[in-house]
Amino acid sequence: MLITPVILSGGGGTRLWPLSTPETPKQFLALTGEETMFQMTVRRVIDAAEFAQPIVVANAAHADIVTAQLAEIGVTDAILLLEPCARNTAPAIALAALALEDSKSPMLVMPSDHVIGDADAFHAATRALLPMVEDGWLATYGITPTGPETGYGYIQTGEALNTGVSAVVKFVEKPDAVRAAEMIASGDHVWNGGIFLFRADVYLGALAANAPDMLAAAQAAMAAATRNGAQILPDNAAFAASPSDSIDYAVMEKAARVAVAPVAMGWSDVGSWDALHELGTKDDGHNTTIGEVRLSEATGNLIHADGIRVSVHGVNDLIVVANGKEVLILPRGTSQKVRDFAKD
Amino acid sequence: MLITPVILSGGGGTRLWPLSTPETPKQFLALTGEETMFQMTVRRVIDAAEFAQPIVVANAAHADIVTAQLAEIGVTDAILLLEPCARNTAPAIALAALALEDSKSPMLVMPSDHVIGDADAFHAATRALLPMVEDGWLATYGITPTGPETGYGYIQTGEALNTGVSAVVKFVEKPDAVRAAEMIASGDHVWNGGIFLFRADVYLGALAANAPDMLAAAQAAMAAATRNGAQILPDNAAFAASPSDSIDYAVMEKAARVAVAPVAMGWSDVGSWDALHELGTKDDGHNTTIGEVRLSEATGNLIHADGIRVSVHGVNDLIVVANGKEVLILPRGTSQKVRDFAKD
Repeated sequence: MLITPVILSGGGGTRLWPLSTPETPKQFLALTGEETMFQMTVRRVIDAAEFAQPIVVANAAHADIVTAQLAEIGVTDAILLLEPCARNTAPAIALAALALEDSKSPMLVMPSDHVIGDADAFHAATRALLPMVEDGWLATYGITPTGPETGYGYIQTGEALNTGVSAVVKFVEKPDAVRAAEMIASGDHVWNGGIFLFRADVYLGALAANAPDMLAAAQAAMAAATRNGAQILPDNAAFAASPSDSIDYAVMEKAARVAVAPVAMGWSDVGSWDALHELGTKDDGHNTTIGEVRLSEATGNLIHADGIRVSVHGVNDLIVVANGKEVLILPRGTSQKVRDFAKD
Repeated sequence: MLITPVILSGGGGTRLWPLSTPETPKQFLALTGEETMFQMTVRRVIDAAEFAQPIVVANAAHADIVTAQLAEIGVTDAILLLEPCARNTAPAIALAALALEDSKSPMLVMPSDHVIGDADAFHAATRALLPMVEDGWLATYGITPTGPETGYGYIQTGEALNTGVSAVVKFVEKPDAVRAAEMIASGDHVWNGGIFLFRADVYLGALAANAPDMLAAAQAAMAAATRNGAQILPDNAAFAASPSDSIDYAVMEKAARVAVAPVAMGWSDVGSWDALHELGTKDDGHNTTIGEVRLSEATGNLIHADGIRVSVHGVNDLIVVANGKEVLILPRGTSQKVRDFAKD
């Protein structure tokens, strides 16, 4: 049975301001290559031998940019589920599950703003998980940690269920540094990458058990949805009545049969300008530059120039991001400060 | 007799790139206040009790911007001497001397891109020099040094000629650091600020003695000049035949009767972004900001934002200059590196 990709594109983060804005959040930007992260996410699941037409769940305000970016990569058969308001991931995924014609179809749920360097490893993990999923398990991808990060949730892995697949012991919220180090030392914890695989009916069943109000709201919103070609617009009032919660809290942490495939796949959530420096190609001076940038006696910098030229002499370990309207300058390692500037 | 201000506006420097460009060199920018340095220069000599209508010597390509900036400050009677090509200051001043109706008129020759904080001190120096000038001396203003700068020429002062006026012993080219320190220690050296006062006929006589080819070229260029209202366009071919040289080399260093008025008048040639930091108003963190700038935990910076917003966190002692097309970033104290970036 073909897997239906469900691409979650509702995010509107501010951590990559000034390039990422509510109008053009980071998934629609070409920050790491020629294509946008949204386009690269869709491309990853485009093989017709394995995948059905994708469902894109997006903010209704982004319908045009989604359609345009899909057309640029030749995808014309996607279903667009346009959220009238944001209710976090659990209700968004419920809309997608209800949109599937075959309720036993496996859904591969992916954020649209992550980078996966090793797509083969990703697909291998999917194939390893598929038998468990067909058997009614909820499944998730566990990112092999590269350090004691405090910015991610963790998953403790338990008994082996299959080659490359373990039962989940428990989900752990973003830890402090001490706890993160303990988990890394334990060897049985992976990062929660926010990528999921399950049958539509299994997800809806888990919602019925753990978040029935959310399921009812999604069902009402889809029953009263407007359809416009490949676009589905769930009813605003009905969907607005849904509780707002993440799939992790609302479903995964509470469900009984949850499997995880630990995988090292060059994953990044591209959650900061610092992350983009880590991901980027470096010159001899450990600088990563995008766009029209001139450097002289400068090392360790991330310089991102969008439609403007940036000339830098004699500075080290800075993040510099500029477009025609805004210039951001701060030291590498402090990119969480971006949120303060992005507020107004 | 009224003094005729002669404002030299032919410069096209690159030291304040990216704001200063060949199309809009620094004298036409409002870098230090509400008005441009050209406008502030004109305003300084606008008192009809002391000054005749000004002569502006400018690059022909800048005729429109000169006219517009004069109109903004209500000056409509200036004579514009539009150089068809650049031949440095000595020939430019020759054109102005030849344009004066009364050859015995004192000319006050000023660069258009310097700041003078204390105009009263400047005018007092002019009044002190005037009797010597009327008596046939060439006169210059000696800037009281504030340190052993290597970026300026120096003037050694000799016997007192009048209250506040000395004879010039000699002009000294830009020194190295050791020589600069020696001159400061000597107590009888001042900076050459490039401001001059002399009778038109005296200047032309000095040219005849020391640079006759230059005088001949200027005379030929003015004899064949085109006049268009208040604009005088000297003949291109004739003026192009002139040697190119500064008034310092061609005349002042060679002439016999040269007077200098040492004066502390808050002078700056605004020759670099570092100079603008020195001149600028500082916040509690010793930052100077112009335009839409947001600072957080940042000290000692010069941030100049022109039509773009600049947001800076956690950096110190940087020069940041941005407009809609270019961003320049370098540490304070290295602003001479700007020339390398300005080349292309």
